[in-house]
Amino acid sequence: MTTGVRRRMGVDERRQQLIGVALELFSSRSPDEVSIDEIAAAAGISRPLVYHYFPGKQSLYEAALRRAADELAERFVEPHEGPLGTRLLRVMGRFFDFVEDHGPGFSALMRGGPAAGSSTTNAMIDGVRQAAYEQILAHLNVEAPSARLELVVRTWVSLAEATALLWLDGKRVPRAELELQLVHDFAALAAVSAAYDQELATIVLRVIEQEPPDGPFGELLVRLGMLTAGAPAVPPQRQP
Amino acid sequence: MTTGVRRRMGVDERRQQLIGVALELFSSRSPDEVSIDEIAAAAGISRPLVYHYFPGKQSLYEAALRRAADELAERFVEPHEGPLGTRLLRVMGRFFDFVEDHGPGFSALMRGGPAAGSSTTNAMIDGVRQAAYEQILAHLNVEAPSARLELVVRTWVSLAEATALLWLDGKRVPRAELELQLVHDFAALAAVSAAYDQELATIVLRVIEQEPPDGPFGELLVRLGMLTAGAPAVPPQRQP
Repeated sequence: MTTGVRRRMGVDERRQQLIGVALELFSSRSPDEVSIDEIAAAAGISRPLVYHYFPGKQSLYEAALRRAADELAERFVEPHEGPLGTRLLRVMGRFFDFVEDHGPGFSALMRGGPAAGSSTTNAMIDGVRQAAYEQILAHLNVEAPSARLELVVRTWVSLAEATALLWLDGKRVPRAELELQLVHDFAALAAVSAAYDQELATIVLRVIEQEPPDGPFGELLVRLGMLTAGAPAVPPQRQP
Repeated sequence: MTTGVRRRMGVDERRQQLIGVALELFSSRSPDEVSIDEIAAAAGISRPLVYHYFPGKQSLYEAALRRAADELAERFVEPHEGPLGTRLLRVMGRFFDFVEDHGPGFSALMRGGPAAGSSTTNAMIDGVRQAAYEQILAHLNVEAPSARLELVVRTWVSLAEATALLWLDGKRVPRAELELQLVHDFAALAAVSAAYDQELATIVLRVIEQEPPDGPFGELLVRLGMLTAGAPAVPPQRQP
């Protein structure tokens, strides 16, 4: 949407405006379907002027992706206060906000369409994954993770991506449930490794100690305890 | 390796031979670094003759990928006998065999290098994921999965991919441990959803009933029970 009023913008300001307009268009449809003409029209400038600021669609796409990547990485930042499960749940809320806002563009990028797949876009995706990984380690107060802990955290980040992508494809499970599920999944994957790994056992037990019984981790532990004790967490189906 | 002995091959035989040679080269290095000249040399034929059978490197790459995808999908097939955890563990062994045999090519493909990222390669990757998904549903005896069960199975397939890719990057955790860990991860992710979902609770409890205590699921359940009961699965670190 433009106001129709044109005023002179500085180079930086114009670039930033174009990136914003492009990001909105690249987010709401598959980036391959967005033309420079549309971006020019949405920005209220001519097509040649777009090319004055960006040599081509790919460079504008990458600039928009850079902004989106920075935005997403910022959402991972969470104060180091309160139970870990609650912190992670808040981050998951902001992650799903992002995924919802940028749905079609996020899907197209992560499923590797033609606009994706360049070394630049891959490096940006990896940068966001790395930011998520480092945030989690910081919250776990671990500076030098073992190979197993690194594996747990990085594979959980993949799991969160896969869950978000599947959610976008039809939204058949409410996102709030998936946000909680991912927090639980993190606990579950950590617990699996903790069952066999000393370093992880120490971390998991430290985290559990600090969790309130009514927090996301506490509730899961109670329910899983019931399930593993052979008692169903929900009543079994009755015979008709 | 060639024998140096040339004999007349039929068109199909020659194509199959070229695909085999190409798959070996594309597997052992990043596909972008493999030239048609190398493939021709390894097959013991001239460069123009390669182009006679395949219009270009991309089409030969895709044919090699097709063969690899079929091979991998075949490895998912497992008799419907015995405990589920043991079946899944055998499949994980064959999956890691495949990943080990095709390491560099698998990494390059899944990390989305320039050779990857076409709609054809993406469709083949999705086809293998779908084959894995369908095999698991068949072993669970589920024909019409709920959205939640679909999510558990599909995200676990992503987790297996991510775990294999991280393993290839340095092999710092023995693959046998990761094969078992992935079986446990499946149980853990299913249990998380089962703690909140009736359909999954029914399936998980049915599977647990059929698991021997010394199988991969049984052992995990015992250890997790100890962990969730507050008793460490491994002795806590002693104060020095």
